[in-house]
Amino acid sequence: MILEFKSKIGREANTLIYDISMTISNEIQVYKNKPEKKVLISIDSDFENNSVYESSIKMNLHTGTHIDMPLHVTKSGSTSDEFNLESCLGDAIVLDFSSLEDHVSKQDLEHYTILKNDFVLLKTKNSLSEEFIPNFIYLDESGSVYLKDLKINGVGTDGLGIERSQVGHPTHHHLLDNGIHILEGLRLKEVPEGRYELLCLPLKIKGVEALPARVYLRTK
Amino acid sequence: MILEFKSKIGREANTLIYDISMTISNEIQVYKNKPEKKVLISIDSDFENNSVYESSIKMNLHTGTHIDMPLHVTKSGSTSDEFNLESCLGDAIVLDFSSLEDHVSKQDLEHYTILKNDFVLLKTKNSLSEEFIPNFIYLDESGSVYLKDLKINGVGTDGLGIERSQVGHPTHHHLLDNGIHILEGLRLKEVPEGRYELLCLPLKIKGVEALPARVYLRTK
Repeated sequence: MILEFKSKIGREANTLIYDISMTISNEIQVYKNKPEKKVLISIDSDFENNSVYESSIKMNLHTGTHIDMPLHVTKSGSTSDEFNLESCLGDAIVLDFSSLEDHVSKQDLEHYTILKNDFVLLKTKNSLSEEFIPNFIYLDESGSVYLKDLKINGVGTDGLGIERSQVGHPTHHHLLDNGIHILEGLRLKEVPEGRYELLCLPLKIKGVEALPARVYLRTK
Repeated sequence: MILEFKSKIGREANTLIYDISMTISNEIQVYKNKPEKKVLISIDSDFENNSVYESSIKMNLHTGTHIDMPLHVTKSGSTSDEFNLESCLGDAIVLDFSSLEDHVSKQDLEHYTILKNDFVLLKTKNSLSEEFIPNFIYLDESGSVYLKDLKINGVGTDGLGIERSQVGHPTHHHLLDNGIHILEGLRLKEVPEGRYELLCLPLKIKGVEALPARVYLRTK
């Protein structure tokens, strides 16, 4: 599948807007290629039998680009009702880890100046594939503890998960248990390392564990 | 249903962010209360049988706050692939028509200074109800022609439709056929008349006639 990422020029002079969201379709990659996670878009009404065309979507809430809420990994965890919209509007920093082969750890992150309230976006080889990668690059526990201690607003990844092969989901817990948002399924291939304004707006769904989102980066 | 609108203070001093999106749930109002348009959120996995909690959503793409694309009313009309993201980021003007009982027309709009590239948001009695209103306030054909001639970017309404009782959907056509976005299902009850920055980010779904969206207004 061709990567349908487009960089567009905003109305303001010298401002670029990057759309870093996955394109949702019946063919979009899903976690571990599980059939029950496949998207289904179906036509409810067309011009054969009506004066309007309408369709429906059925999808797992972890489809494409999405926010995880604490309920995803903790029985008593908070839901989308506690989503903090301010955390998802503001300063973002894209870190280019395209050379890494397995995971991002504390020692990789220490090379950068990451500020309190930043939204940290991890650009990896994951952005190069529109097929699910079983061994996707992930953020390990040491990296999540390091970022939590910096009191950032959130972490974004271009994998469909932010961790794998860690018993008990410690990366999710270190972040979510400390009010740090997790944003999964980004497309960062065309975005240079650097600082941006983040606009991450998830659907407003009541009481759920994840929210599909549209996400842009604006150059400053 | 209680209106779950929240006004929140942004991080920047003196900046207010209004979330003007409907809350999606199994109970959300749907157009004409049609059963086939009801939202269904279902649990795919919980802590009884798995280490993560996950759910799915099935919904008509015209659920809650959403963008209509030309295919909705025109067989050869363009789809979400032509969505213009720049049109949905920028200057917005909220016009308070809460005193009107039936529709907004050209003569109502002429009282205001509306600029080229504005996104015009119509605040009406529709924002007061969380139940579907059969006789919802709409934008009549004269109003749509007036706004089209002003070369605005888009029109937003707090009804689930932008028009009713007009044969052939002329309001949709005057706007969509001229590249003007239609944004339906807003919640404007708490937003004072005036000028704002619009942040309207719809889900990125391929090739469809409508896009569910999250929408904020930021004070300037």
